[in-house]
Amino acid sequence: MPVPTDFRFAGDRMEEDCGVFGVYDAEGSLHVGEAAYFGLYSLQHRGQESAGIAVTDGSGIRYVRNKGLVPEVFDQETIQALTGRIAIGHVRYSTFGVSDAINAQPLVARYKHGNLALAHNGNLINAPALRSKLEDYGAIFQTTVDTEVILNLIARLSSDGLEEAIHKMMKSVRGSYALVMMTETQLIGIRDPFGIRPLALGRIGEDSYVLASESCAFDAVGAEFVRDVHPGEIVIIDENGLRSIQMPVTCRSKLCVFEFVYFARTDSMIDGVGVYAARKAAGMRLAAHDDVSADMVIAVPDSAVPAAIGYAEKSGIPYGEGLAKNRYVGRTFIQPEQGMREIGVRTKLNALTKNVKGKRIVMVDDSIVRGTTSRKIVDMLRLAGAREVHMRVSSPIVMHPCFFGIDTPSEEELLGSHRTCEQMREYIGADSLKFLSLHDLLKTVEGSGCGFCSGCFDGDYPMPLSESESCDLAIE
Amino acid sequence: MPVPTDFRFAGDRMEEDCGVFGVYDAEGSLHVGEAAYFGLYSLQHRGQESAGIAVTDGSGIRYVRNKGLVPEVFDQETIQALTGRIAIGHVRYSTFGVSDAINAQPLVARYKHGNLALAHNGNLINAPALRSKLEDYGAIFQTTVDTEVILNLIARLSSDGLEEAIHKMMKSVRGSYALVMMTETQLIGIRDPFGIRPLALGRIGEDSYVLASESCAFDAVGAEFVRDVHPGEIVIIDENGLRSIQMPVTCRSKLCVFEFVYFARTDSMIDGVGVYAARKAAGMRLAAHDDVSADMVIAVPDSAVPAAIGYAEKSGIPYGEGLAKNRYVGRTFIQPEQGMREIGVRTKLNALTKNVKGKRIVMVDDSIVRGTTSRKIVDMLRLAGAREVHMRVSSPIVMHPCFFGIDTPSEEELLGSHRTCEQMREYIGADSLKFLSLHDLLKTVEGSGCGFCSGCFDGDYPMPLSESESCDLAIE
Amino acid sequence: MPVPTDFRFAGDRMEEDCGVFGVYDAEGSLHVGEAAYFGLYSLQHRGQESAGIAVTDGSGIRYVRNKGLVPEVFDQETIQALTGRIAIGHVRYSTFGVSDAINAQPLVARYKHGNLALAHNGNLINAPALRSKLEDYGAIFQTTVDTEVILNLIARLSSDGLEEAIHKMMKSVRGSYALVMMTETQLIGIRDPFGIRPLALGRIGEDSYVLASESCAFDAVGAEFVRDVHPGEIVIIDENGLRSIQMPVTCRSKLCVFEFVYFARTDSMIDGVGVYAARKAAGMRLAAHDDVSADMVIAVPDSAVPAAIGYAEKSGIPYGEGLAKNRYVGRTFIQPEQGMREIGVRTKLNALTKNVKGKRIVMVDDSIVRGTTSRKIVDMLRLAGAREVHMRVSSPIVMHPCFFGIDTPSEEELLGSHRTCEQMREYIGADSLKFLSLHDLLKTVEGSGCGFCSGCFDGDYPMPLSESESCDLAIE
Amino acid sequence: MPVPTDFRFAGDRMEEDCGVFGVYDAEGSLHVGEAAYFGLYSLQHRGQESAGIAVTDGSGIRYVRNKGLVPEVFDQETIQALTGRIAIGHVRYSTFGVSDAINAQPLVARYKHGNLALAHNGNLINAPALRSKLEDYGAIFQTTVDTEVILNLIARLSSDGLEEAIHKMMKSVRGSYALVMMTETQLIGIRDPFGIRPLALGRIGEDSYVLASESCAFDAVGAEFVRDVHPGEIVIIDENGLRSIQMPVTCRSKLCVFEFVYFARTDSMIDGVGVYAARKAAGMRLAAHDDVSADMVIAVPDSAVPAAIGYAEKSGIPYGEGLAKNRYVGRTFIQPEQGMREIGVRTKLNALTKNVKGKRIVMVDDSIVRGTTSRKIVDMLRLAGAREVHMRVSSPIVMHPCFFGIDTPSEEELLGSHRTCEQMREYIGADSLKFLSLHDLLKTVEGSGCGFCSGCFDGDYPMPLSESESCDLAIE
Repeated sequence: MPVPTDFRFAGDRMEEDCGVFGVYDAEGSLHVGEAAYFGLYSLQHRGQESAGIAVTDGSGIRYVRNKGLVPEVFDQETIQALTGRIAIGHVRYSTFGVSDAINAQPLVARYKHGNLALAHNGNLINAPALRSKLEDYGAIFQTTVDTEVILNLIARLSSDGLEEAIHKMMKSVRGSYALVMMTETQLIGIRDPFGIRPLALGRIGEDSYVLASESCAFDAVGAEFVRDVHPGEIVIIDENGLRSIQMPVTCRSKLCVFEFVYFARTDSMIDGVGVYAARKAAGMRLAAHDDVSADMVIAVPDSAVPAAIGYAEKSGIPYGEGLAKNRYVGRTFIQPEQGMREIGVRTKLNALTKNVKGKRIVMVDDSIVRGTTSRKIVDMLRLAGAREVHMRVSSPIVMHPCFFGIDTPSEEELLGSHRTCEQMREYIGADSLKFLSLHDLLKTVEGSGCGFCSGCFDGDYPMPLSESESCDLAIE
Repeated sequence: MPVPTDFRFAGDRMEEDCGVFGVYDAEGSLHVGEAAYFGLYSLQHRGQESAGIAVTDGSGIRYVRNKGLVPEVFDQETIQALTGRIAIGHVRYSTFGVSDAINAQPLVARYKHGNLALAHNGNLINAPALRSKLEDYGAIFQTTVDTEVILNLIARLSSDGLEEAIHKMMKSVRGSYALVMMTETQLIGIRDPFGIRPLALGRIGEDSYVLASESCAFDAVGAEFVRDVHPGEIVIIDENGLRSIQMPVTCRSKLCVFEFVYFARTDSMIDGVGVYAARKAAGMRLAAHDDVSADMVIAVPDSAVPAAIGYAEKSGIPYGEGLAKNRYVGRTFIQPEQGMREIGVRTKLNALTKNVKGKRIVMVDDSIVRGTTSRKIVDMLRLAGAREVHMRVSSPIVMHPCFFGIDTPSEEELLGSHRTCEQMREYIGADSLKFLSLHDLLKTVEGSGCGFCSGCFDGDYPMPLSESESCDLAIE
Repeated sequence: MPVPTDFRFAGDRMEEDCGVFGVYDAEGSLHVGEAAYFGLYSLQHRGQESAGIAVTDGSGIRYVRNKGLVPEVFDQETIQALTGRIAIGHVRYSTFGVSDAINAQPLVARYKHGNLALAHNGNLINAPALRSKLEDYGAIFQTTVDTEVILNLIARLSSDGLEEAIHKMMKSVRGSYALVMMTETQLIGIRDPFGIRPLALGRIGEDSYVLASESCAFDAVGAEFVRDVHPGEIVIIDENGLRSIQMPVTCRSKLCVFEFVYFARTDSMIDGVGVYAARKAAGMRLAAHDDVSADMVIAVPDSAVPAAIGYAEKSGIPYGEGLAKNRYVGRTFIQPEQGMREIGVRTKLNALTKNVKGKRIVMVDDSIVRGTTSRKIVDMLRLAGAREVHMRVSSPIVMHPCFFGIDTPSEEELLGSHRTCEQMREYIGADSLKFLSLHDLLKTVEGSGCGFCSGCFDGDYPMPLSESESCDLAIE
Repeated sequence: MPVPTDFRFAGDRMEEDCGVFGVYDAEGSLHVGEAAYFGLYSLQHRGQESAGIAVTDGSGIRYVRNKGLVPEVFDQETIQALTGRIAIGHVRYSTFGVSDAINAQPLVARYKHGNLALAHNGNLINAPALRSKLEDYGAIFQTTVDTEVILNLIARLSSDGLEEAIHKMMKSVRGSYALVMMTETQLIGIRDPFGIRPLALGRIGEDSYVLASESCAFDAVGAEFVRDVHPGEIVIIDENGLRSIQMPVTCRSKLCVFEFVYFARTDSMIDGVGVYAARKAAGMRLAAHDDVSADMVIAVPDSAVPAAIGYAEKSGIPYGEGLAKNRYVGRTFIQPEQGMREIGVRTKLNALTKNVKGKRIVMVDDSIVRGTTSRKIVDMLRLAGAREVHMRVSSPIVMHPCFFGIDTPSEEELLGSHRTCEQMREYIGADSLKFLSLHDLLKTVEGSGCGFCSGCFDGDYPMPLSESESCDLAIE
């Protein structure tokens, strides 16, 4: 069960699956385990359930991975022991059941040609089919993550070397993947042909390279941003420097637009677009089509703040804070007894009564998933005396689940999947409710020159879901 | 050593000493331990070093206290065991040395007339003198907190009953104290005659009362705000309901104005003034006297946000975000090795390069203590391409240490104690630097009808520091 | 609730209250914290509930104490920090209620003339009376241990210096006490005038001294045994070396004879008598008065092994093992569900079926308290096929509770307090049951030249229990 | 690095690799996770590094495994969640490097025909060859344990069903294995054709079966011993009851004789021989060929006690205790600083000076591996005043490493591999040194009707070590 680390109800959120990181120390001047630690730390928002780092000094791969936040999994002593030339790391969002720890990444395995470690962000829609096919060939699976399918494919397709195996693997799998891989001598970054999940390349000093899901990890380790890994590109870094192999890409790229809506950190840039600017622009566009009369624009903290600022700036309605968030909300937290629940515990989020009372409020959030949290917040604002609460959402209505790496409720549980906007408004209890149009959302990220996956809004996925049956696996 | 739980350098902050909480369940319908837990949780910002809860069911006092955040000290099982009719709790900021745990509060002791538990926010300037006098009478001290002095005074002055003992204690001690006390049958709240530290009274249902350092704790437990405890007032709650005793108060009250500047949570009201409104007003007044030309107003997150919003609103310069804060910064965090330090780890705070580049920035913070953090942030903004950085501080220059419950560096370490504003600007590296005047700051809290301690700004303390010698302790 | 760390039922055991240790490093060549650690480790059998060490380097006292076994309370880093010239330590058996940690020792306090730390083994029968008297004088008590009474007495009686205060304290208190005390410059050992609880003096090198409850702690730290501290003696060690003050002793000493029966470790010597030899002699004397025909003598592991060996040697019946003990029994252990309980879990102790089957067994244990464990073991042996089980106990019938530092069940719960030997046999289910006579037990420890307390056997306590009312406390 | 849990020097011990356990609840009346817990607890002596339990309720397999002792890995809540119809468990001795946890067992994997869990005690000498062959076929390996080779073999050979796959696997592997395996519907026990490692079958009630490395686990869970699993036998337990398949066995069985010397618990029976009786008989035979004059026979605790008792009984020299062992020696223990090391810390084992002084001692131990511990103990006894120390070893000289599941030092490190008995005596510092002959050792276990592996004594291994090259793996 996902552990809520903020005030939202469990399940009432699109949740990112993972963050990946890799570093190759060409000059022998870095502590790669430490670099991975700080890199993962800055990617912590992409996954809070487990973390792992694997390192190699050229002979064998050592690793530590476990459930917990990055600073919970690693202490000073552990990090100090993770020395070497190359490191990769992973933070993971979701886990399932009793046997969680085993699903932590990076996965590390020995195959015919040596050792491999693999960290994966994304989801393969044909993983079950491939898994079944591999089982026919005698493979066993010790985890439930798609990453193990990729590992098995690479091992089985490696007769002509690792690069060839990666090519073949990419032809076999369908879905999203930003991969950071490590052999005993190479750091490899791979992005799926649609570029659905982000992956960026950075540099430390002259020749040391870094790979990360988001550019904010480069700032964290003092690296400079070089460029995004291209959709369908394989980047190989070793003692000969950096080499790129571009797989044929038959269609426009399909970067997940939700990265801009909510997942990524505001200080990251993805495929050329700054996250903060995109969010602020979304708020401005929301205001541009709006004519509500109100006294104050507030944000649901913290992710909707840039959009609320944009809305306020465009609309001329003053921006303010209407909700106070407890900064110390953590993962272990007792469940209130019946008595306290009825009284209404408000330890994680509280209305700023004095600032809200008697006012007409525009409340900006980044998305509505189940709507349970929105409903509660609107109720809280009304109890605090807000005269009107107009909810504005800086993204379109989420109507479809994601199959490409984001944890969403099932379609029936999505508030927007089976309700009109008016019905949604009624459920939430707001005086009015408006969403940003998909057209406008895409405008906010236009500069990127790339296409986007907007499947959760319009059902237009990067590939037909029927490809989940695909299993063109040619093992000689 | 204080554990930094955010991005600021250790020591570069005025730090609150404590938060206190108490609850009396008149109707037998509350789980008082749980109520204390949620109350303390909402006061967590007032102290992150240790936490404790004591309960009584009328016979004996049980307690749990330890180092750590509230949810670290208490788990479900522990809280469930803390049943009773009355509970008091405490969160504490600072600790010293190896033997920390013992300084956690509430202090619990048996004296001649029964058991007492005591939670204290504040600082007694004549504690050493009283301690020495008490030692002359044979007292021993097992902790280094002033609270133990208060306990000993009450025990020793109790020949005519507890109330009389409290009166005498209040006559003996000099300094600040918001006290929540518990006997086996009574919950007692006491505020020093100057009202230096805040203490508020709330109610749950008809007859159950709550005491807390800030009103945000009332929302946390579903209590309704009744009023602030008055300076010099003793509030006694027991089976006969609530009774108030007002000690003679010979001077205007002296509430710590820094509660509004930084300590309190934005959703709290103290002595009639809303914290958020005061901070926003401070920003507006800052802007009113300013004429800098700039492109964007940003806040140092999170406490300076309301002032920045106020500044932006008043000045007409757009409000924006220029700094991204890692939401997962915790207490255990490895120290980067030399190599990484040189590269410049930025895991806790990072500039939003895209949003800052080429802009003239007004950067609002709530205060400058040592200036080390400000200097680093200004540098970070410049590296991100800010064209100009104008720092605006929503409080006056901190020139003097606090002796009344706030942990401050020594006078020499305060940047403002021995530098002109221009020298401060130079140290910090900003293009310009301005502070709110004390006059303006006091205007922002005017509605409260009470006076304020502004000792850290102007050295005008509520009482002569020479009273630290005071020891008019009449033990028969 | 006492945590059973072996196979015996909770409460079916006389339990030692404490072990104490102290070290004074005259030559600056010891790590006193480490020495205390190893000393306490070897005294772990005297108390498994909490442990603590206090050190001084001449200015102030630092300490660490907590619940748990010695290696649980202290890790390498903690011990390394406990440097200084003097250290004292304590292991404690029993704790009570939610607020346990505070009862851990050494107690550390500041009083008029400096800092004191105190570790105590024993029990004061007039502690409540003294406590009440002290409360009349305004004292408060933050723990429930007698040690705090001693601390308060010393503080209050210290007008003529510490030595004088100790004299007066010894005149005021009634009961048992082996005390190890520390000021910032002195290590002090005190044994009550009856010498009820043991305390020995050792030396490391020329001038560094060690105090410990048992001599086995000297071997643990490489110290050489010097002598036992005498009943009523105060030993003071400081930069001037060792000085002894002998308080007038009006009666024969009364060392707890149960130290030899069960508490002490077999490699210790107490007041001149080796523990192993005494236990073996007890077994031999038991056999000397016995004529049972049997095939094998077995011991209830591990404390009864020496007596069983003695019995076997004297009787000529071969010694063997009939019970296997799980060597990994620890403190955290799940409670079996109903189903498993009925099946009969035998994880802690098991019969050696092959060795027991068809045999007539003499089963030697050191004592019978409630009898519940004995009953279960006899049953286990019968199920394993033992033809006869003759229980022999190497001490007399425990008929009375201890008031001098040993945790015993109440008189009604003692199997021997209200049953004939035959009724006890019947309850336990043995074919025969015999106890060592008190006369014989005392013979086994004869060499010591001292007298013994045998109160738990014959009710003849070292002092009238009416002295618990004694409160001749002359505070000027 | 192996963690020493007793007083012996690291590496100076033959160490068992593992203990296995399985339970099938035919009647729906057991808590199988709890049964596995108690079973593993009684097998804790076979492995203290990690523990794991896997359960199935017919659909999927859940598991928990981690580093630590059984009660450290599982708490009440965890065990309560491990419900189902079948459970298997494992305790493991050795671990390697940073990535330990992953080597914990049972291994759990999904293969073509469902889920499998596997717990293994033993060692495959041709594992590297098989692993390499499997890698040629595209297999990946995520652990370094042989068990993963077995899992892969079964998966790859399973085209004709699981039983057939097990047959083929048994033909392919060379070495020792006592396996407990679980599918979603079956509990399976397998013992290698030489029966090198023990595996026994027990029953709870009418139809519920238990498998365990040693019979002591049956007592622990209230099961009755049925019989040993035969060498080369596959036992399958499912809803149809118990079925046995006997693989052709071409040679005499080769049970590891060291199980009797040291590994097994004294209350276990293996292949018809009671462990205690065998050890005692070894001591008697040792005495039968001895004529040393001595005053006392002592054992090195605890494993050599039965042999010492036997020696004493046969020789007529009285049995006694000469060494006291600290019963609280645990896994976390600080390392003494140089200073304390020189003084000679004796916290884990100490001589009973009073009992040893002036005596001629026969000191019985069960084996000599490196000899470092023996040397130290002899020295300790001499310092305590022993007049003579005659060491007697209740097994032959260990001259060769084990390749079949026991962790031994390399041949050069074995004291006996390159020294005469006289040279060994000299190293150890004893007055005389004698070993039991292999002939005599085998006599002590004669009743079993089975043959024994005595490879570590005489180099006569159950199979040629050249079979480590064997890789007759016929994958279609």
